[in-house]
Amino acid sequence: MDFFYDRPDAVVDAGLDALCADSGLVRSAPDTAGVRIVARADWDRRLGQVALVSGGGAGHEPSHAGYVGSGMLTAAISGEVFASPSVEAVLAGIRRVSGEAGCLLIIKNYTGDRLNFGLAAERAAGEGHRVASVIVADDIALPQVAQPRGIAGTVLVHKIAGACAARGDELETVTAAAQRVADELCSLGLSLEACHVPGQATQSRQPELGLGIHNESGAQQVDPRDASEAMGQVLAPLKAEFERRFGADMPMIVMLNDLGGCAPQELAVLTRALIDGLGVARIERLVRPARLMTSMNMHGFSVTLLPARTDYVQALDEPASPAAWPGAFKPAPVAHFEPHLSVNYESAGMRDEAIEARIGAVLAAVDQAREALDALDAESGDGDTGSTFASGAKAVRKLLDEGLLSSADNARLCGQLGRTLAQAMGGSSGVLLSILFAAAGVALDEGLLWPEALAQGISRMQHYGGARPGDRTMLDALVPAVNALREGGDLTAAAKAAREGADATANITQAGAGRAAYVRAEVLKGSLIPAPRRWRACFRRWRATEPSPGGRFGGNPDTRPRSGPRRARSRSRAHRRYRGARR
Amino acid sequence: MDFFYDRPDAVVDAGLDALCADSGLVRSAPDTAGVRIVARADWDRRLGQVALVSGGGAGHEPSHAGYVGSGMLTAAISGEVFASPSVEAVLAGIRRVSGEAGCLLIIKNYTGDRLNFGLAAERAAGEGHRVASVIVADDIALPQVAQPRGIAGTVLVHKIAGACAARGDELETVTAAAQRVADELCSLGLSLEACHVPGQATQSRQPELGLGIHNESGAQQVDPRDASEAMGQVLAPLKAEFERRFGADMPMIVMLNDLGGCAPQELAVLTRALIDGLGVARIERLVRPARLMTSMNMHGFSVTLLPARTDYVQALDEPASPAAWPGAFKPAPVAHFEPHLSVNYESAGMRDEAIEARIGAVLAAVDQAREALDALDAESGDGDTGSTFASGAKAVRKLLDEGLLSSADNARLCGQLGRTLAQAMGGSSGVLLSILFAAAGVALDEGLLWPEALAQGISRMQHYGGARPGDRTMLDALVPAVNALREGGDLTAAAKAAREGADATANITQAGAGRAAYVRAEVLKGSLIPAPRRWRACFRRWRATEPSPGGRFGGNPDTRPRSGPRRARSRSRAHRRYRGARR
Repeated sequence: MDFFYDRPDAVVDAGLDALCADSGLVRSAPDTAGVRIVARADWDRRLGQVALVSGGGAGHEPSHAGYVGSGMLTAAISGEVFASPSVEAVLAGIRRVSGEAGCLLIIKNYTGDRLNFGLAAERAAGEGHRVASVIVADDIALPQVAQPRGIAGTVLVHKIAGACAARGDELETVTAAAQRVADELCSLGLSLEACHVPGQATQSRQPELGLGIHNESGAQQVDPRDASEAMGQVLAPLKAEFERRFGADMPMIVMLNDLGGCAPQELAVLTRALIDGLGVARIERLVRPARLMTSMNMHGFSVTLLPARTDYVQALDEPASPAAWPGAFKPAPVAHFEPHLSVNYESAGMRDEAIEARIGAVLAAVDQAREALDALDAESGDGDTGSTFASGAKAVRKLLDEGLLSSADNARLCGQLGRTLAQAMGGSSGVLLSILFAAAGVALDEGLLWPEALAQGISRMQHYGGARPGDRTMLDALVPAVNALREGGDLTAAAKAAREGADATANITQAGAGRAAYVRAEVLKGSLIPAPRRWRACFRRWRATEPSPGGRFGGNPDTRPRSGPRRARSRSRAHRRYRGARR
Repeated sequence: MDFFYDRPDAVVDAGLDALCADSGLVRSAPDTAGVRIVARADWDRRLGQVALVSGGGAGHEPSHAGYVGSGMLTAAISGEVFASPSVEAVLAGIRRVSGEAGCLLIIKNYTGDRLNFGLAAERAAGEGHRVASVIVADDIALPQVAQPRGIAGTVLVHKIAGACAARGDELETVTAAAQRVADELCSLGLSLEACHVPGQATQSRQPELGLGIHNESGAQQVDPRDASEAMGQVLAPLKAEFERRFGADMPMIVMLNDLGGCAPQELAVLTRALIDGLGVARIERLVRPARLMTSMNMHGFSVTLLPARTDYVQALDEPASPAAWPGAFKPAPVAHFEPHLSVNYESAGMRDEAIEARIGAVLAAVDQAREALDALDAESGDGDTGSTFASGAKAVRKLLDEGLLSSADNARLCGQLGRTLAQAMGGSSGVLLSILFAAAGVALDEGLLWPEALAQGISRMQHYGGARPGDRTMLDALVPAVNALREGGDLTAAAKAAREGADATANITQAGAGRAAYVRAEVLKGSLIPAPRRWRACFRRWRATEPSPGGRFGGNPDTRPRSGPRRARSRSRAHRRYRGARR
C-alpha cells in the first residue's frame, strides 16, 4: 500500500462525503447518473443573490467543492479525477441554485470543461435561467498558445466574484468583475515530479516548469539547485509578464499554491523565497500559502499574480465561510526583538570560609572519584560519568578560587551552582543538577531551610526528569540523604544514607521490556539531536519511569497524582508579586 | 533536487520568517545564540493574562510557532529540526511574555524538552516569574511504557488552555485545565514510510503503527490493505483505550492530523474512514483535518481522541487568530438532495410536413456522406467523422419517423435537435452542434429569425469551442453559409457558400508550433479522460485558437474583446424574468 486510498474509483465520492460532513453543505445523492454536485445548504435562490457555480475534474481538492460557502461558490460540480463533469451534471447544478438573479459559471480553460459547462449554460438558458460564464486561462507557461490553461488563479475568481455576489451585485456586475480578474491573472507552476493518479502507475519525470494540473508535461525541463532557484525560475517569467501588462509599479495580490505534495516546511521555505523574490513592499496581499488548486499529490507549487486593484483587495478581505479559503494578509518585513539573554558573569556576594572549605572538599572528592565513576559507567554506558561530573567540579572550583562564589548567601549560591553545572557538565545530568539547585535556591529564598529546600529541588528534578527512586539513578543516593537531613540527621548521617542507597542499586534488576522499548525509541530520537555523546549515556541512567499523567495504568483519573509538587508550588507562590529578573 | 529546501540548516529560520511575514507576530533577532522565539506582537504582559509558552524541536510545523496568536499560544520556542531548544532560549521566551499573571509552559514528553523547559522554568522562578508547566504524553502506542511521548494532542492543549487564558483565568485555573486535557488525551499514528530530514538520506521503512514524530520506529509494523484498514488499525486501540477510561457512551472530540505527506485527497479518504469508524453521532467536534503536528513530510496520519466535556467544547469553539488552527465542527450525516435531471422523452409539438421533408433530405445526405467523411478524417485522424455524424442523423431520423419532432415550432425543434445530437454523437462535435442548436433555439424563442438565430448559435459555439474561421473546423462551412442567409440569400446560396468554405480548407496550412504544443498537452490530458476515441480525433479538428482573454497578445486590456457575445447576451436577457424550467 503506497497511498491512503480505498478503491481508485471511490476517491472522488470519499472527498465529497468528507467535505459534506460539515452541515453547511449538501450534495447530490450518490449514484445519480454520475452527477456530483455540492451546494450551500443555506442557499435560497429566491433571495436574489447571483449564484456562482464552478467545477471540473476532481483531483484538484480543495478545488472546487471546498470553496462552496458564503462569500465564494454557491455550488460546485465534480467530474471523475481529471475528467470534466457531464453536461447533465452541470445543468442539474445550475437548476439547483439559479434563481431570478441568475447564475455565473466559472470555467477553467480546458476543452472538456468549456464544452460541457457551455452546453449546460445554453440549455439552462433555454429553460429560462439567466446564465453567464467566464473562462479562466491564467497559465502563462506557453506564451505562443492562444488558449492558455486555467489553473490556480481560478480560486481568486471564486473569491472576488463571490464577494461581489454576496453583497448583492447584479449578474452583469458580478460577471464583469469575474471577467476582469480572469483577464488580469497570470500563473505559473513548477514541479519536481509527476503526480500519482489513483489506479495508475506513477510516471517518472524530471523537474518541469510551466506544468498543467493534470500531469500534462511542463513547458520545459528545469534543474533548479535549490528552492530559491526554483522560485526564481517561476518568478522571472511571471514578473516579466505582469510588468509588461501592468507596469513595474503596480502592487500585487500574490498567491502561492501547494500542488499537493509539499511538506509544510517546504512551503515555508518557498514562501520566504517568494516574498524575497518579489520584494515585500510590492505585495499588497498574500493569500496564505496552502493547497488551493492541487494536482493530486504533485510535489510542486504555482504562483499567481494579480494587480492589487482596490476593489480586488476589498473583495479578498471580505469574510468567506469555506474552510479551504485560507485568507490573505499584507506581508510585512519580519519584526525582530532582542531576546533578553542571561548575563553570565558571577559577582561575589557574601562569603563564608567554613562553607567554602566544605565545598572544596566535595569538589576534591568528585575529582578523585573520576576514574572509578568512568569505569562503573563503562560497564553499561559510554564511560564518561566521572569525567562529566569532574567538569562540573572544575568549573565550580574556578569560581571558588576566584572568590566569586556567594558562599554565605545560600539562595544565591544555589543559583550560581545551578547555572555553572548546566553549562560545564552539559547533557541531561548537568541540566538535572541545575534544576535541583535552581529550585532549592528559590525555596531557600522563600525561607525554607536546607533540608526542605533540597527536597523541593529533588521533587522538581523528578518532575522534569521523570525518574523515581529505584530506577538506578542519582535519586537513589540523593533521596535517602535528604530524608536523613529532614529527619534531623547531620551531614554524616546524610552521607551514610547516600552510600547505602547507592550500594543498594547493585541489587536493582533491569527495567522491564517495555521500558527498554521506550529507551530504544528515545535513543533513536537522540541520534538526531546534536548533543554530546554523554547525553545518551546519561540518558540510559535516567530511565523515565514517572507515573503517567494519563490514566491508563488503572488509577482513577480524578485522584491520581498529576505533577502534584508543581501545582502545590504554583499555589504557594501565587501570593508573590512579579519582581522582574533579579539579576 | 528532491525537495524544496535551500540549505538544510536554513529550514528552521525560513519557516519562522515566512510565518512572521504576518505582522501579528515578532521573532527574536536571528543569530542570537541559537535562540528562536516567536511571540505575539500585540502582547502586553502587564495586562494580566496568563502567558502560554510551548515549543520543542522544529520539523513539526505548524507546531508550535504557527499556533502563536490570540486564543492560543503567547510565544513558541523552536529548536533545530527534531532537537529541543536550549534552556537559555526557553528562558528568554518566558522573560519576553511572562507578567504578573504568570506563564504556563506546555511541554511534549521528550527528555530533552522536559529538561530544557524544566530548567528554564526553575530559573525563571528564581528570577521571580510565576511559572507552571504541563507535560503532554498522549501517545498510546506503547502501553507498557511509563512515559508516553507527546504528539499531536498537544495542539488541543494549546487551544483549550489558550481559551482559558484569553478569558482571563488565573494561572492555577489555566494550568489545571491544561493538565486535565493532557491527562485525558489519547493519540496514535500510522505512517507508510519514514520522513525526510533535510541534509540526511531518506530511510526506507515499512508501514508502521504507533510512531513518534521524530522518525523513531513505530511500535509495530503493519500492512494495511487500504486506507479504511489503516484507519481501523489506528482506531481499534484508540477506541479501546478511550472506552476503558471514559466508558462507551462518552462523546468525543476528534482530531485527524496529517503528519505532513498526505495529499488532500488522501486526507479526505481518511476523514471519511474516521467518521465511519467512530460513528458520526459520537463525534461532538471534529477538528478540521489538517497538518497540525507534522513530522517533516511523513506520509502518515495520527488520530487524537478527547472526551467531549462541555468546557472543552466551549473552549474549542472560541475564536483564535492563528491561521494554522483550522477550527472544529460537529460532523453530521451527509445531507443529500435529488438532482433535477432532464427528462429525456420527446413529445410531438406542432408539425410541418414540408419542413420534415427538408430535414429528411439533410439526414439522408449526412448518411450518404458517411464513408467519404470517414475517409477524409482518416487522413489526419482516426477516421470516424462520418460515422459520428451518421449516428446523429440516425437519432434524429428516429424522432422524425416516430412523429416526435416538433417541426413547426422552430425554437422547440432546435432544443430537440440539440439534446438529441449531444446524446447520439457524443464527444466534442456532438456537444458543439448541441450548443449551436440550443443557443439558436433560445434566440428563436426571443423572436429572432433563422439567420440571426443561427448566427447567435455559431457565436456561442465559438465562445465555448474556442475555434475561429480558418482553423479547419466546421466553422469554415457554417459561417459562410449563415452569412449568406443573413445577406438575404436562400438555402441554395447558403449551401453554395458552405461548399466553397469547405473546399477552401484544403489550402489552410497547419497551425504553428505553439498551437501544436498545446494540443500535445491537451492530448495528454485527454488520455486520462474515459471519453470515446473519437473525442481525441474531433479534438484535433477543434484546435483551440480563440484570442486569449489575457492581454499578453498586445491588445489594450481595456478594449480587447472579452467574450463579447456572452456579455451582450446576458444584458439583452436581463429583462427576462425567471420562468423556471420550461419542460
